Amino acid sequence: MSAQTYPLAGPARIEINEVAPRDGLQIEPFVVPTEGKVAFVNALAHCGFARIEATSFTSARAIPALADAEAVMHQVERVPGVRYTVLVPNLRGLERALSCRPDEVNLVMSASETHNRANLRMTREQSKAQLLAMTEAANAAGVPVNISLSTVFGCPFEGDVAEADVMALARTFADAGAAGITLCDTTGMAYPSQVAALCQAFQRTLPGVGLTIHLHNTRGMGLANAIAAWQTGVTRFDAAAGGLGGCPYAPGASGNVSTEELVHMFASMGVDTGVDLAALLAVVGGVSELVQRDVPSQLLRAGPRLRTHQPPAWMAEFFAGQARQA
Amino acid sequence: MSAQTYPLAGPARIEINEVAPRDGLQIEPFVVPTEGKVAFVNALAHCGFARIEATSFTSARAIPALADAEAVMHQVERVPGVRYTVLVPNLRGLERALSCRPDEVNLVMSASETHNRANLRMTREQSKAQLLAMTEAANAAGVPVNISLSTVFGCPFEGDVAEADVMALARTFADAGAAGITLCDTTGMAYPSQVAALCQAFQRTLPGVGLTIHLHNTRGMGLANAIAAWQTGVTRFDAAAGGLGGCPYAPGASGNVSTEELVHMFASMGVDTGVDLAALLAVVGGVSELVQRDVPSQLLRAGPRLRTHQPPAWMAEFFAGQARQA
Repeated sequence: MSAQTYPLAGPARIEINEVAPRDGLQIEPFVVPTEGKVAFVNALAHCGFARIEATSFTSARAIPALADAEAVMHQVERVPGVRYTVLVPNLRGLERALSCRPDEVNLVMSASETHNRANLRMTREQSKAQLLAMTEAANAAGVPVNISLSTVFGCPFEGDVAEADVMALARTFADAGAAGITLCDTTGMAYPSQVAALCQAFQRTLPGVGLTIHLHNTRGMGLANAIAAWQTGVTRFDAAAGGLGGCPYAPGASGNVSTEELVHMFASMGVDTGVDLAALLAVVGGVSELVQRDVPSQLLRAGPRLRTHQPPAWMAEFFAGQARQA
Repeated sequence: MSAQTYPLAGPARIEINEVAPRDGLQIEPFVVPTEGKVAFVNALAHCGFARIEATSFTSARAIPALADAEAVMHQVERVPGVRYTVLVPNLRGLERALSCRPDEVNLVMSASETHNRANLRMTREQSKAQLLAMTEAANAAGVPVNISLSTVFGCPFEGDVAEADVMALARTFADAGAAGITLCDTTGMAYPSQVAALCQAFQRTLPGVGLTIHLHNTRGMGLANAIAAWQTGVTRFDAAAGGLGGCPYAPGASGNVSTEELVHMFASMGVDTGVDLAALLAVVGGVSELVQRDVPSQLLRAGPRLRTHQPPAWMAEFFAGQARQA
């Protein structure tokens, strides 16, 4: 770490897991037709993402918006270099998912008891048992498992969540063969020093486990938290194109950290994200039409920082006149 | 710096300069009546700010919204502990300002030639000469001077601005007796590693000069940039209640970093801002009515991170039923 860049140093390269097709579309009131979802995933796949969470094998009754999970997975182009991951809630969903040859499956439970009950209608013990059974089954089928732990930076019902609870859960799944674990700020309660502390604890305790950070921008701290994680060495980030997503239990909340703002920030800093920002912005430009509402992307409105503007029309003549008078 | 908190460490205490009454109200289409401005400044003054930029002594023709600068300054309560600062564009404005006994005056020019011409209708050389004359006059009257340098992190017309240009300007004004200098990200082009680098260069070069950072959230990086500045030792931040403000030359831009989000983030991290967040949120809750439009405060919508919610109503009965069946 050179004196020049201290204290803002971190990995030269990060990877982004684009979650909008699953985490974003699942809560949109407008149900995007299958061909729209397939086109969205394909367009994202050509932007350079390391991973795309393409859909969820939840029951059609629980999440009607993603009832076409098999169709989406069978129709998307499998762009080389992109890992296609899917969310799976239970063993029935896992069977459906495995028939679609995902590169990875993502399983989810909450670090806090009340959020787990509210979101998954199970106790944490029930969820843990189910996720352990699914991890075993997926690994037996040769498919790597990622575990997403919700509410690790705070629960909207309980408040702060103990680091020890989070690390105990993480260790349980790491021991059971999970290839990666995602620490999720489900309702945007994380703050930078907390993110840095938990990321450091994780990397010290479970150095061999792939750590991903999933951030929301609910209280404006999304990118600040991303930098904090990166400064501790984190290289994998979830993000959603257009800032889609959110949580039904966080009223008034904005959604996931927007992928284009994350890419724009890290690219400005010279960090390689693998993602082509211009291509991504072209895709994000179509998201409003896809979901039939405005999306909370400030970067889409303002443009990249070096997209300069013409000076006002009066200016040249004004200063020419001033020079003539002088 | 303990191993626990590395690399997220910075000063234990920061000061906030609340700029909404000037930087925010000056571009609002709705002209807030004088009594509304006075009540706004007074309410803010009781929140614990170190400084409040209360108004601007610009010509009524240039900024009609702040034509009542004298009335505002004569009517506001002068709450002990708060420094009341005002923006002053020229010697005529300085005379008007000094008659109102400000605790400080704030003078402004741009680091980039094109933005200075577009925003101030002067060349940088003209602005510099004017600001030096004003600095001398204000100091002669015993009033400290702060210089706000616009576009130091990028110009919306020219792109990146050379650090050497910024530091040369800063040194000129420091040598001329400016007590403080504000580095302004006028159109939200700053990114964290750049902020850290410029703040470090400034503090190394001009260690005796009060450094303030003025950030916008145009591309989502406002709070990330604030943390970056803080990590280099910066303790003074401009911010605007409700995220008011913006720049007419940055189309589509959102405004200044919102004070409540800045306070909320630093308070979560245990940094003393001097500001009472609950009192501030009560004030921000009235800003929409004050300016007759929605304001871009995510924190106002989502609430502080530890304001918890009730679990859904179905939950207790559902798990009681499950327990009965077991």
